[in-house]
Amino acid sequence: MIKVGIVGGTGYTGVELLRLLANHPEVEVSVITSRSEEGMRVADMFPNLRGHYDLAFSVPDVDTLAACDVVFFATPHGVAMGMAPDLIKRGVRIIDLGADFRIKDVELWSTWYKLDHTCPDLVEMAVYGLPEVNRDQIKNAQLIACPGCYPTAAQLGFIPLLENKLVDHRRLIADCKSGVSGAGRGASVGALMCETNESMKAYGVPGHRHLPEIRQGLALAADRPVGLTFVPHLTPMIRGIHATLYAMLKDPKDGLQELYEARYKDEPFVDVMPAGSHPETRSVKGANTCRISIFRPQNDDTVVVLSVIDNLVKGAAGQAIQNMNIMFGLDESSGLKALGMMP
Amino acid sequence: MIKVGIVGGTGYTGVELLRLLANHPEVEVSVITSRSEEGMRVADMFPNLRGHYDLAFSVPDVDTLAACDVVFFATPHGVAMGMAPDLIKRGVRIIDLGADFRIKDVELWSTWYKLDHTCPDLVEMAVYGLPEVNRDQIKNAQLIACPGCYPTAAQLGFIPLLENKLVDHRRLIADCKSGVSGAGRGASVGALMCETNESMKAYGVPGHRHLPEIRQGLALAADRPVGLTFVPHLTPMIRGIHATLYAMLKDPKDGLQELYEARYKDEPFVDVMPAGSHPETRSVKGANTCRISIFRPQNDDTVVVLSVIDNLVKGAAGQAIQNMNIMFGLDESSGLKALGMMP
Amino acid sequence: MIKVGIVGGTGYTGVELLRLLANHPEVEVSVITSRSEEGMRVADMFPNLRGHYDLAFSVPDVDTLAACDVVFFATPHGVAMGMAPDLIKRGVRIIDLGADFRIKDVELWSTWYKLDHTCPDLVEMAVYGLPEVNRDQIKNAQLIACPGCYPTAAQLGFIPLLENKLVDHRRLIADCKSGVSGAGRGASVGALMCETNESMKAYGVPGHRHLPEIRQGLALAADRPVGLTFVPHLTPMIRGIHATLYAMLKDPKDGLQELYEARYKDEPFVDVMPAGSHPETRSVKGANTCRISIFRPQNDDTVVVLSVIDNLVKGAAGQAIQNMNIMFGLDESSGLKALGMMP
Amino acid sequence: MIKVGIVGGTGYTGVELLRLLANHPEVEVSVITSRSEEGMRVADMFPNLRGHYDLAFSVPDVDTLAACDVVFFATPHGVAMGMAPDLIKRGVRIIDLGADFRIKDVELWSTWYKLDHTCPDLVEMAVYGLPEVNRDQIKNAQLIACPGCYPTAAQLGFIPLLENKLVDHRRLIADCKSGVSGAGRGASVGALMCETNESMKAYGVPGHRHLPEIRQGLALAADRPVGLTFVPHLTPMIRGIHATLYAMLKDPKDGLQELYEARYKDEPFVDVMPAGSHPETRSVKGANTCRISIFRPQNDDTVVVLSVIDNLVKGAAGQAIQNMNIMFGLDESSGLKALGMMP
Repeated sequence: MIKVGIVGGTGYTGVELLRLLANHPEVEVSVITSRSEEGMRVADMFPNLRGHYDLAFSVPDVDTLAACDVVFFATPHGVAMGMAPDLIKRGVRIIDLGADFRIKDVELWSTWYKLDHTCPDLVEMAVYGLPEVNRDQIKNAQLIACPGCYPTAAQLGFIPLLENKLVDHRRLIADCKSGVSGAGRGASVGALMCETNESMKAYGVPGHRHLPEIRQGLALAADRPVGLTFVPHLTPMIRGIHATLYAMLKDPKDGLQELYEARYKDEPFVDVMPAGSHPETRSVKGANTCRISIFRPQNDDTVVVLSVIDNLVKGAAGQAIQNMNIMFGLDESSGLKALGMMP
Repeated sequence: MIKVGIVGGTGYTGVELLRLLANHPEVEVSVITSRSEEGMRVADMFPNLRGHYDLAFSVPDVDTLAACDVVFFATPHGVAMGMAPDLIKRGVRIIDLGADFRIKDVELWSTWYKLDHTCPDLVEMAVYGLPEVNRDQIKNAQLIACPGCYPTAAQLGFIPLLENKLVDHRRLIADCKSGVSGAGRGASVGALMCETNESMKAYGVPGHRHLPEIRQGLALAADRPVGLTFVPHLTPMIRGIHATLYAMLKDPKDGLQELYEARYKDEPFVDVMPAGSHPETRSVKGANTCRISIFRPQNDDTVVVLSVIDNLVKGAAGQAIQNMNIMFGLDESSGLKALGMMP
Repeated sequence: MIKVGIVGGTGYTGVELLRLLANHPEVEVSVITSRSEEGMRVADMFPNLRGHYDLAFSVPDVDTLAACDVVFFATPHGVAMGMAPDLIKRGVRIIDLGADFRIKDVELWSTWYKLDHTCPDLVEMAVYGLPEVNRDQIKNAQLIACPGCYPTAAQLGFIPLLENKLVDHRRLIADCKSGVSGAGRGASVGALMCETNESMKAYGVPGHRHLPEIRQGLALAADRPVGLTFVPHLTPMIRGIHATLYAMLKDPKDGLQELYEARYKDEPFVDVMPAGSHPETRSVKGANTCRISIFRPQNDDTVVVLSVIDNLVKGAAGQAIQNMNIMFGLDESSGLKALGMMP
Repeated sequence: MIKVGIVGGTGYTGVELLRLLANHPEVEVSVITSRSEEGMRVADMFPNLRGHYDLAFSVPDVDTLAACDVVFFATPHGVAMGMAPDLIKRGVRIIDLGADFRIKDVELWSTWYKLDHTCPDLVEMAVYGLPEVNRDQIKNAQLIACPGCYPTAAQLGFIPLLENKLVDHRRLIADCKSGVSGAGRGASVGALMCETNESMKAYGVPGHRHLPEIRQGLALAADRPVGLTFVPHLTPMIRGIHATLYAMLKDPKDGLQELYEARYKDEPFVDVMPAGSHPETRSVKGANTCRISIFRPQNDDTVVVLSVIDNLVKGAAGQAIQNMNIMFGLDESSGLKALGMMP
């Protein structure tokens, strides 16, 4: 059994890791940390875990974590970079669900995250954990930077177009809609039921931290810098991201459906829907799947790609487990076999 | 008192007309029709109306309706054009909340609505009831074609840019999100709670009937045909439309905020938000207001306009009443004074 | 114009007072206080108020408030009793939406609210602001203790039975369901969208602060102490209370429908539904109405009363305004004419 | 592999069976029927099943179904009784998720379901599939009548009290709240998003078909007829039942917590929560678990039991699979290992 540690187990990505790992046949969660909830049993905080976990939260401690085979960081940015160097030295493998190692340009990272980076060398060695792009590197990685939720949906939707240089890379638009769980489990007025339900709004239009991450990934696919307008929206639901992506075709023609199907035909967690389908976020609720549809409305030169994920699964905990499975040579879908919950 | 008739009172726009008109000081609803619910009292079907209406549904009948000063059609397309000619002849003023008179090009209308038009001459005389564009014509109109919900949000957001020829009119994008009430009150699997809640999806990407209507309005503002990609989405809420509009500035510079404020400074129902604000649909829930914000993310050449309305009020019944107020020389906000309901 | 002050304007009952008073023809809100938001304009915090209020929050100050004709306290318990004595001395009339003056037994109050009461004499002079019971006393009151939300729904549903001594007063059950806005606008994990949506739970089963208040009101109606089991539940919606009330008839027979209709026939804000109807909370959303239905399932000896209100209107701000209207000799429904919003 | 047939696969219990059985290691779904959707692939109707099923709906046919080891009926009442006799004769085991075999008194069944029963002998041989009561009989049953959703929650909550004769069996109250999926997937105005969201209502207060079923089960536990008032409510969520149960203790004393813990200590799918806990329906969303809490508010003689399930899992498809596992000697939790989804 692989011994797993989780740092930051009281947020939504933390409890989602616990929920999914409870049914992973080759894993045992042996440590889970929280400074604020030390001593509380995880099943007392999250009653859905009752009967599945006997663990209590402990204060994060490098010695204890070093006894694990792999440590997941389900923490706000800035936490993982503080503990990662010690753990890496001791041979522990790390999967960071936070943002500390996602941006290769450390100065750019500092600009967006308002922090100096304390271990730029680890940024360099970190592998960006998008299996559909980096599976081979993930196999041997010691440190994984798990993609953000919006970046997962947006990149999987855009990259077939960019890899094949089919669209104007300077004018990409990602209009993305997220459920409220993306805002985390911290007490905040803005995420209250009465502030978010029965309403829709954009936020962060002048700039959102996922913008440089998406740009970096798209630039790699396009093999050149890209121009991207990214507008995130808060949607009155708990889980789910719906990315609606717009690009201009250089040479409008048929074949996009086939292109996407070919690009993802061996991917266990990307489902290219039949032509004409509109994916619903609920079709992936609780599942590690990304479903994608491609349209060319009115046969015009604008291509519209729809890409949906569960932000807590393929956009966070599920993708982290997928990375772990790849790193440890397990069946890539171990612990990730649940279907989307409809209704 | 102005005598009002309503044809098609069992749908959501019908009951919204009744709800709003109950507090209109100069109006009396004297007829309300429904073929399927003949004889049922409106307050038995819609208990929120109890104590405010003693009316029962009657079968639509031209003679009865001809005794009204104005008749609202809150009906699916195809109904108003059947009764309008007779009513017009008898001097009744008509406000059609449906689609029969919105598109000036009758052939184009037929293509999208799959019906022959039975009174093209009335299409010609009809005034498109967007007061922010056509207030003067509305005053003397006998027949108003009330704008659709998406077209209202999209046009109010786009037209200052187009009227001033500031953007590339060939490459407009309207990414619009609607609550489920836009789908109407008919029994359908697709609009069930369990099919729509906790989920987000696009629909009609290959083509939606509001596309030609929006294009027509934008073309008038731009004084030339426009290119538009329009993607509507179904959002898990009852009321509200959030239009996220994208255009490319020909000559990127400051001043858009002031431009919008100037364009709408005398408009009672358009609220240009302070720079940097993100409007929420709930801020207009139940109100006849359109709130708009303008952004130029990263000071780039893409302008992003956010425009929110309540689809049943400014997007339907409220705007219809606003038109009536203008037509009859009343205070434009009579019956429309309710504030948005937050929370 | 009546000059109104509001203490505690940043919570949901505060903003609801502002929303409703904006359309009250004889009232001007001249002061609104908040310690934490001093200087912020109310319309910047609550954009639905834009165009209707030019006020900013100020620090609560007795001298400023003393210039008002009436002051509403929309505050947590403990605040009103601190300022009321001074205001009362200066002749200001007070309507407390909080709990400070609701319970006549000051020791009992202290037990439930964990505070010593600082002005028991004011408790004595306060009138419990349930117009359907105390309208005459309200007319001349200087200090109104506005009922809680659950107590309003439960008392209006139970009192016809108790006033007529028809049921076993020792075995009353109130199973109540509330929307989340009852939890207030404070940042708390328990009221987050992701903690409350798509879920139902009871809370406070061992004891909730509204229990002694309901018991007090029912005891007055029954003219003797009553036994009551009260179970509140959190429901995944923003507004609304649905009280399902159970009692055992001493002498099961027909006539309850008529009894209720007679009891409330002159009440502008209590609507006894036709026999067999099931009231929905949405039928009173935004309205100051309480709708009630009475059942005797299977013609047995258990009577079931259904009573619905909007917790923020008839359960708080609307009822407070109704009290003000009565106190100042205005039309009782001034500012309260909105119909429930369906859908 | 056990060959499974499903009759009526287009409703919510049908698709839930498919979702759960996709991860059952010892089962293969070989037939799924629907008259209306013949030929459609199940994964085209329910995209969450994409990649997991290659089946298409077929017209129900006894010969085809007779090749299965077990047939689930996920159909409205009246369907199973038409096909069951033939299948039983051919040795197929049947699990009916509908109501045809739940009520032992066939005349009583006819009164409530407005149909003559066509195979009363099968009613007699049918085993009521509540494993916590009838596990031994289920093992050898050929025909299982799966309990209704409300009856499952109510019986599991009440029976420890009744089996031990602790409460007045003539005065039981079950105040139950259900998500909208209980209304099924048929197109109906009453189950629309815009009719059910943001609202709460009771329904069927004069009488609901689950009333005789609950009474029958409670009478067996109490060993005498019981008096029960049952009030179901529609709650604005998709999944979940919250039963709030009231009874009067004959001899109020401590020990109820221990009693419940002892009653259910070997039950894999009943979780008695720690004293003082309030179970949330979301803690069992997607899981086959029933969570129960017991209270004696104010140490009085009224006992309040809270019992939550997912109506589509422990209230339908999950319980059906649990029955199948018992019937075929499999691990009782095969295919039912998913944890509740929080958030």
